[in-house]
Amino acid sequence: MRKVTIYDTTLRDGAQTEGISYSVNDKILIAKKLDELGVDFLEGGWPGSNPKDLEFFKAIKKIHFKNTEVAAFGSTRRKDTPASKDLILKALVNSGVKHITIFGKSWDLHVKDVLMTSLDENLRMITDTIKFIRLKKIKAFFDAEHFFDGYKNNPEYALKTLIAAQDAGAQCVILCDTNGGTITSDVKEIISRIKESISVDLGIHVHNDNGMAVANSIAAVEAGCSHVQGTINGYGERCGNADLCAIIACLELKLKMKTIGHARLKELTEVSRYVSEVSNMKQQDNQPFVGTSAFAHKAGVHINAMVKNAQSYEQILPETVGNKRRFLASELAGKTSILFKAKQLSFDLGKNDKSTKKLHKQIQELEYEGYQFEAAEASFELLIKKTLKKFNKFFELDGFRVIVEKRQDDTLISEATVKIKVGKTRVHAACEGDGPVNALDGALRKALRDFYPELSGMHLSDFKVRVLDSKAGTAAKVRVFIESQDEKNSWWTVGVSENIIEASWQALVDSIEYKLLKEKETKK
Amino acid sequence: MRKVTIYDTTLRDGAQTEGISYSVNDKILIAKKLDELGVDFLEGGWPGSNPKDLEFFKAIKKIHFKNTEVAAFGSTRRKDTPASKDLILKALVNSGVKHITIFGKSWDLHVKDVLMTSLDENLRMITDTIKFIRLKKIKAFFDAEHFFDGYKNNPEYALKTLIAAQDAGAQCVILCDTNGGTITSDVKEIISRIKESISVDLGIHVHNDNGMAVANSIAAVEAGCSHVQGTINGYGERCGNADLCAIIACLELKLKMKTIGHARLKELTEVSRYVSEVSNMKQQDNQPFVGTSAFAHKAGVHINAMVKNAQSYEQILPETVGNKRRFLASELAGKTSILFKAKQLSFDLGKNDKSTKKLHKQIQELEYEGYQFEAAEASFELLIKKTLKKFNKFFELDGFRVIVEKRQDDTLISEATVKIKVGKTRVHAACEGDGPVNALDGALRKALRDFYPELSGMHLSDFKVRVLDSKAGTAAKVRVFIESQDEKNSWWTVGVSENIIEASWQALVDSIEYKLLKEKETKK
Repeated sequence: MRKVTIYDTTLRDGAQTEGISYSVNDKILIAKKLDELGVDFLEGGWPGSNPKDLEFFKAIKKIHFKNTEVAAFGSTRRKDTPASKDLILKALVNSGVKHITIFGKSWDLHVKDVLMTSLDENLRMITDTIKFIRLKKIKAFFDAEHFFDGYKNNPEYALKTLIAAQDAGAQCVILCDTNGGTITSDVKEIISRIKESISVDLGIHVHNDNGMAVANSIAAVEAGCSHVQGTINGYGERCGNADLCAIIACLELKLKMKTIGHARLKELTEVSRYVSEVSNMKQQDNQPFVGTSAFAHKAGVHINAMVKNAQSYEQILPETVGNKRRFLASELAGKTSILFKAKQLSFDLGKNDKSTKKLHKQIQELEYEGYQFEAAEASFELLIKKTLKKFNKFFELDGFRVIVEKRQDDTLISEATVKIKVGKTRVHAACEGDGPVNALDGALRKALRDFYPELSGMHLSDFKVRVLDSKAGTAAKVRVFIESQDEKNSWWTVGVSENIIEASWQALVDSIEYKLLKEKETKK
Repeated sequence: MRKVTIYDTTLRDGAQTEGISYSVNDKILIAKKLDELGVDFLEGGWPGSNPKDLEFFKAIKKIHFKNTEVAAFGSTRRKDTPASKDLILKALVNSGVKHITIFGKSWDLHVKDVLMTSLDENLRMITDTIKFIRLKKIKAFFDAEHFFDGYKNNPEYALKTLIAAQDAGAQCVILCDTNGGTITSDVKEIISRIKESISVDLGIHVHNDNGMAVANSIAAVEAGCSHVQGTINGYGERCGNADLCAIIACLELKLKMKTIGHARLKELTEVSRYVSEVSNMKQQDNQPFVGTSAFAHKAGVHINAMVKNAQSYEQILPETVGNKRRFLASELAGKTSILFKAKQLSFDLGKNDKSTKKLHKQIQELEYEGYQFEAAEASFELLIKKTLKKFNKFFELDGFRVIVEKRQDDTLISEATVKIKVGKTRVHAACEGDGPVNALDGALRKALRDFYPELSGMHLSDFKVRVLDSKAGTAAKVRVFIESQDEKNSWWTVGVSENIIEASWQALVDSIEYKLLKEKETKK
């Protein structure tokens, strides 16, 4: 089985994503996760370019990694300066790593317009830098920046830069599509042309500006590369780097090659979500293999077929990569998805049962009013249990009031009061908040906390508002989705009303009822 | 120049996206936009499968499309039923379109396990259905569902299904990678093997479960396909369909083929954002070509190089596809568009005028807070006039209060009070409404009506809410857009706050101020 080296650069190239800003601690958390996943290398940063990265390399020395080697990243020496006098290069070799990746120019346009030096001096910069690193007994990889653009412009010179790195002692030369504009057939064609001239390992590092980063990485492996660089979730500048989640899954499952090993594939979904959490980026729902929608079926014909044969609308079993199959409840689906969902909840309903018909009718009515359950599975579960009379109320609402006031001095106050009944006890609670819904959430929790202390373990994590039939202006109906999470799970709930406060209230109540229900079921 | 047909299925396959639920009106808005963009075909839906799609095809008959043909979608006839007796097929040919796309099974597994019929009957189902459509003088396309999976399993049979459709009169047979699990090299290899057996046009329709949908579509064109199906923004079930934005850009710019024509490429970014707005899906920041980060530069070395040569870190000029370059660190962009807008309003500002700098700084600050003026030009005009001190206040706010109350008997009341000053007169007005914003709108108008009777000629016509940084849950910032209209015009205004009532208030006040300003300017 052919082995392909996985080189992760989430902490270096991924950190260039708009909206991502890692603390040293974030980087350590991600590094440990990458080690668990079993990538061969992780690129920690560019020591010397900023103090945060220097600190990371200091901190990481104390950590024992089981599967992963830490690599540092840096550029070739400055022009017309001996390598030994280059301070950034010095910081790099002193960072304590056993592998250094050096990026250098392969595109003559960059040598002339950006470095503003001669083509020969650029070759010397590559040679000197790699030799300097090798003399320190550190292994060297060479990132040939803009290799494909360079090759298209001046093939002879682009190749020379690779050979300079190879002859100076680089263990692997990596072909970079830095601007992400190369199409798949060109990647393959160019690699096949230069392959014979290179005796060390060939690597690939591509960006996604064409939307082809995954395909280009796989094509490069087919053409002979044995080292692939990318980032978790495809983070990276502009349109991102190649997504390692998809690359690892494709290499293992489609090309039958060894990367992290088949057994660890089932970690992929969790790693993707963990890294997106630490990066404070919402995971893309439709992300290949690991997104929450990646194995979600909505069309009625698809759901009917899936019930007959799971292979019919899925390229792989979702469990292979640690993901889950989901059947979405929607007007496009029908009774089948209701039955499937009910079965997951251990209710064995028949297609023509009274309860099934009642449920089906109720869902159709609610969808007509604007509810949408495909994205609010917790509300859907509550609806089923309530309709089947398998739900005991945790509390009853007597009323709520929300006041938003803007005063002359421009202060803005949001206050909510909630009156509820838990068993026979009446509770009246008040709370201020950052806005009306936030205040309402606070007041409801306050009212419930003495009865249900487990609620302190959950919080609201996402909030969406959709105006239905928006042409009715401010009197239009509004649909609110709320995502909540605790230590282990997250769940979505929905509310609909012409009044945005009421719609939010419905979703809030569902989210709390769902949490209480799950706690109760666990205790059983 | 080789022409490639673009076939959009946003309204049919794209509607399968988790979270998307189009009204008939949404579909019409998107259809008109697709016509402007100039795609060759748009697939409107599956008449007969649901009443909404039937309604759409009825409504669309009254619209004149300049560039685009509307196609309807449906399946082959039921097994063991004559085509003429198939009610869904009947609804399909009666939908009034000139093109119908029929999907049929190419994978023997599906024929056996899902259709549960014989391989021969499936071939007859294809033949009969296409012939039935052709007899009605309607053109037929054939979507060979799961073609690639089918070919891998039983190449001979998969090919037979294509030939059945071709012989029955289909104008184009489309190879579908329905489960999205085929890798690029297999797409190319399989097409090159079957190409010689097919004399009609070949099309490609792929899904993104491997993350390769764009690359696979382009590879298919290189291998001989002349018809490409996909959706705007890659919407679609599970991981989505192939993203037409990237495909169109790659075909035109990389393969130098003709699709919508080079001149219309600059509409791509706007179309992508418009469709995401109507679909109520956040556009992905890093979406190739059209995302807001697609040409955003963050790394210092990149920005330094970009200043020297714009080609150094961009695959194409962003303007080619209607997008913009952004430097995230230095925030230099934007002045040109301010000057342009000011000029439209008859203010002749110089690039280095004090006013320009002040205006530029203020807009940057507001955009940083979450305001967006591209879609709220009335607010933008007010901002310019206020900053240049060309605006006299029509009224001043002393305060407002909004109360939403839910009582024990389930009645829900929304009441707003507004205190304002018009000249030296203080006014205090109260109003109930269908929700808090509606009540606030009512109270403000009540307070103003004696002073500005012209306000009775305007009303709010649209209302949109977008949660920014939704990870903060119910304490997240909210952006509200309001559209207002009078007899002649309509205009959009914007407000941003952590408090949805305050954000709505800002947009309400802008909308009224804008109306009063226009009335005043007309009187002059």
